[in-house]
Amino acid sequence: MTRFTITLQPVGRRIEVEPGVNLLEAAQRAGVEMVASCGGLGICSTCKVRIPHGKVTPPTETELEELGKEQIAAGYRLACQTEPLEDVRVDIPRESLVAGQMLQLDGREGEVALDPPVKGIDLELEPPSLEDLRSDVARVDSALAAQGLGPLKSGPGLLGRLSQHLRRSGWRARIAVRPEDGASALVSVLPHGARLAGLAMDLGSTKLAIFLVDLESGAILAQAGVMNPQISYGEDVVSRIAYANRGEENRKQLQARLVETINQTLAEFCEREGICADQVVDVVAVGNTAMHHLFCGLPVEPLGAAPYTPVVSEALHFAASELGLRVAEGARVYLPPNIAGYVGADHVAALLATRSYTADGHTSIVVDIGTNTEISLLHGGRVLSCSCASGPAFEGAHIRDGMRAAPGAIERVHISGGAVRPVTIAAQPPVGICGSGILNAVAELLEASALDERGVLRPGAPRVRQANGKAEFLLVPAAETGHGRDIVVTRKDVNEIQLAKGAIRAGIEILLREGGIGAEDVDDFIIAGAFGTHLDLQSALRVGMFPRLPLERYHQVGNAAGVGARQMLLSRRQRDEAARLTRRVEYIELTTYPDFTPTFVDQMYFAS
Amino acid sequence: MTRFTITLQPVGRRIEVEPGVNLLEAAQRAGVEMVASCGGLGICSTCKVRIPHGKVTPPTETELEELGKEQIAAGYRLACQTEPLEDVRVDIPRESLVAGQMLQLDGREGEVALDPPVKGIDLELEPPSLEDLRSDVARVDSALAAQGLGPLKSGPGLLGRLSQHLRRSGWRARIAVRPEDGASALVSVLPHGARLAGLAMDLGSTKLAIFLVDLESGAILAQAGVMNPQISYGEDVVSRIAYANRGEENRKQLQARLVETINQTLAEFCEREGICADQVVDVVAVGNTAMHHLFCGLPVEPLGAAPYTPVVSEALHFAASELGLRVAEGARVYLPPNIAGYVGADHVAALLATRSYTADGHTSIVVDIGTNTEISLLHGGRVLSCSCASGPAFEGAHIRDGMRAAPGAIERVHISGGAVRPVTIAAQPPVGICGSGILNAVAELLEASALDERGVLRPGAPRVRQANGKAEFLLVPAAETGHGRDIVVTRKDVNEIQLAKGAIRAGIEILLREGGIGAEDVDDFIIAGAFGTHLDLQSALRVGMFPRLPLERYHQVGNAAGVGARQMLLSRRQRDEAARLTRRVEYIELTTYPDFTPTFVDQMYFAS
Repeated sequence: MTRFTITLQPVGRRIEVEPGVNLLEAAQRAGVEMVASCGGLGICSTCKVRIPHGKVTPPTETELEELGKEQIAAGYRLACQTEPLEDVRVDIPRESLVAGQMLQLDGREGEVALDPPVKGIDLELEPPSLEDLRSDVARVDSALAAQGLGPLKSGPGLLGRLSQHLRRSGWRARIAVRPEDGASALVSVLPHGARLAGLAMDLGSTKLAIFLVDLESGAILAQAGVMNPQISYGEDVVSRIAYANRGEENRKQLQARLVETINQTLAEFCEREGICADQVVDVVAVGNTAMHHLFCGLPVEPLGAAPYTPVVSEALHFAASELGLRVAEGARVYLPPNIAGYVGADHVAALLATRSYTADGHTSIVVDIGTNTEISLLHGGRVLSCSCASGPAFEGAHIRDGMRAAPGAIERVHISGGAVRPVTIAAQPPVGICGSGILNAVAELLEASALDERGVLRPGAPRVRQANGKAEFLLVPAAETGHGRDIVVTRKDVNEIQLAKGAIRAGIEILLREGGIGAEDVDDFIIAGAFGTHLDLQSALRVGMFPRLPLERYHQVGNAAGVGARQMLLSRRQRDEAARLTRRVEYIELTTYPDFTPTFVDQMYFAS
Repeated sequence: MTRFTITLQPVGRRIEVEPGVNLLEAAQRAGVEMVASCGGLGICSTCKVRIPHGKVTPPTETELEELGKEQIAAGYRLACQTEPLEDVRVDIPRESLVAGQMLQLDGREGEVALDPPVKGIDLELEPPSLEDLRSDVARVDSALAAQGLGPLKSGPGLLGRLSQHLRRSGWRARIAVRPEDGASALVSVLPHGARLAGLAMDLGSTKLAIFLVDLESGAILAQAGVMNPQISYGEDVVSRIAYANRGEENRKQLQARLVETINQTLAEFCEREGICADQVVDVVAVGNTAMHHLFCGLPVEPLGAAPYTPVVSEALHFAASELGLRVAEGARVYLPPNIAGYVGADHVAALLATRSYTADGHTSIVVDIGTNTEISLLHGGRVLSCSCASGPAFEGAHIRDGMRAAPGAIERVHISGGAVRPVTIAAQPPVGICGSGILNAVAELLEASALDERGVLRPGAPRVRQANGKAEFLLVPAAETGHGRDIVVTRKDVNEIQLAKGAIRAGIEILLREGGIGAEDVDDFIIAGAFGTHLDLQSALRVGMFPRLPLERYHQVGNAAGVGARQMLLSRRQRDEAARLTRRVEYIELTTYPDFTPTFVDQMYFAS
């Protein structure tokens, strides 16, 4: 049977499919998760791709309608509407990839020279004889010395495995070693020529981005975005901290659940890639300070009460076995330094990954939006950072009909006059509003003049009604929803967005003030993280969450923290760089900043 | 009630007793194990002591008979016959202490400057405040820096305990740290001012000498000689290696049993001394290569078949938790380097402990007798070492009526004409002969001319008889034994001693030859180890096991390996010194030494 090879870029995956399979399905089969809000019906244009090489089926009417002739002429198509007619190359724009897969930063991701802390050494040794009574370890040490490496350093467990492997495999083996302090710490014992992989993780409060990376090519072998299982113990880190502080057992449970999920994901990766746990020889994890502590099983009492200091903000480097990670026996976990109580190593990793935007001379802002939003201003060699409590509204929490980004969630809405056109994830009947949806709805309500600058719904505007004496906007009537109840935007929902965007904008303004510059001096405004990638920039600007700059200065870079974690997995220099970067940071504690409250209150209003 | 204080030297113990308690009992109550072959009947003089200060009961008739007036005038007494009349000091000569306790080397044990690898640091920190948001670890790092120490290095387990301890104890704690590579590896978290201890062990094939040592004073807090539980899997290491090689499980079992025994002994020490496992912050173990591998759980296949090379002969330093030792969470085990297949780190430790005899310029021989006997010749800056298979005869094995040194074992025998006067351990009715007993018996048979130089029992000599056509010497007739059977010395028993002493003497002669000197050039002849301490030197010389030198050149120094292990626990320099010493050793493999067999055969004969 004829089969076509589909090359998916920039993720670098290849898959063969039979004729009649559309490109969206091909991508899904290849394990590349694309945004496809309407579930392949061709009505949301979120699966837009470009076909630079190869013949495909002609554009459908749906495509002509959704994309327009100009885009189609430029090679753009909807993946769900297009079938290959020969081998084709498909370029997937960043916005069509789900968060975990947005790894390329506009081609501007600094090339990281491969210099992983763990190296593979192939051994071919002479067996002992009466003329050569040296120990097995002495033989290996000679081979290491020939490569300029120090003698083996190991506990007996791994040494025993090494000895047995050598003696059973004709004195051939590959060892993974970590050069340190003039010695070579033994990490794993593998068959001659075996591949070495590493695990990089961005541990978000909600989602874990997990990457399996080939340490010798730098290629991503597998990746996944999985739910953080700690969610069942508390939606946000504050409630998880409270849970953990109710007893040692609770804390251990949170840690164990997280590690279990990571182990499961890794086991799936390994099975798919034909790799065994012993080949996973290094681990880098980044996360906010709370996730960092919960992952390590560190006490979180200090994070739960004033003055909210961490147990440790310095880099940690310790045996992966201490956490129960099922990787090579001698593998270690590297956790880069945290900046301060609420600015974690994930932000350090994001700064590292976006260095091409933030090089000295450039003035940049890097913002990572979440329940806590971390913001850094890089200007004139300085790095000013702060964290603001933006709350969980952007995760759909504390919103009347809010929900997480899941099928049936309204993620975009077009409001004009009395007409409302919602777009839901997977084109399911609407059941609620996710973070980007509520932000978009508020912006549309402002545009439609249904909302004033103080956040008050205008009485008399179309669809604005009173319920229990409070104003609300009817977004979707019960008859059109998936659950048969009205979906509304309440005054309180709007206020939650005001609090969130006000906090973020206040943080930005205070950093600019401390840096002695104006917003117009910012060359690059980098929006990192999952929510930041999905948010509608125009909406964010309309509500005043970010200062208004020429559009080309904004960059929605996806999971920069994950990119930074991978860079630290692949390069000792990047680890050093992360440490240097952290030391340079001037942290501004907003809760005690004299001018914070007035700035925050100012920024809660919407610009008219 | 009146009580007298008994100070026991050189072991440095003190105990209060009521009047009427004899010195042997006092020593036993103080945990000092003295030789007391006759069980306190006053007929063996093995509990001889000297009383330099303090009034005691007058000498008994038994003492006058056993010691003679001259010795009594010099202050010597039998501990079992003497009761204190006021506070007294008791000096216990080496030969009156059981092997495990012979720790002082004639007062010539080099003073080791205290410089333990693990140090205790008392912390008194400022708590965090809004003005000082540093992490807990940053606070500790400042305190360490003030003492010239590098920043903490630790996994999260111990860091978490440190944080909790600080916060629950008013920011006061004592930490044990191991300075390494510019950092301070965290070993344990303890209450402010807590004592630090270390574990030093000499892991013999038969007995384990275990010491709990105060790391800050160097004092021995507790010590014990316990049976190696691996004995139930094989009397000698060769059979244990065979057992281990029958399956991974067997090997793990041998390791587990050993560690279990060590943990039990340590737990007893800790309870007695009011110390907890977290205070035991360092471990040093020495043993022959087989014990080294079996303790570590290393594969022993390579030790079980030609060319008998070890997995590792280099020094090992790894987490004590890897072996399951119940000590402080961050404690490591240090195992000094082994010299070669059959010359282990116990011999390195013995060389270290006897350096005062073996300093450059001095010519010395250090011999440690066991199933394998390790011998080193130190001469003109060279260290020549060899190992000879002396067999288990000195442990009572392969001897018709042989037994281990236990109650009822004949350990000395006086033969004159037809009269035989055996002395047994604990003065029990004789049931067998232990190693020192059979050596003594053979020497006595030679003196009594019941044996010729080839090892043939002379027909017609008193008590020499034929049994099943083979000659044997009746040592104790059935009626006088504990089990109602004759105890005899057979021709084969004599031959076993010939093989053993021939191998040892051949090793000595070959080392002397390789060193280019004669026996008369040896300034000090050091006999280390348990058997070496108990053997009757005159007998050893009579059978020709050692060359004849002026008696004052011989030193029976007891458990020198244990002393060396303690020195390495207390001093980083001693660890370096052990490594240097090992590198200097010129190992002579006797099995392939051209002239070994003729030398061995020569030395099997008895000098007439």
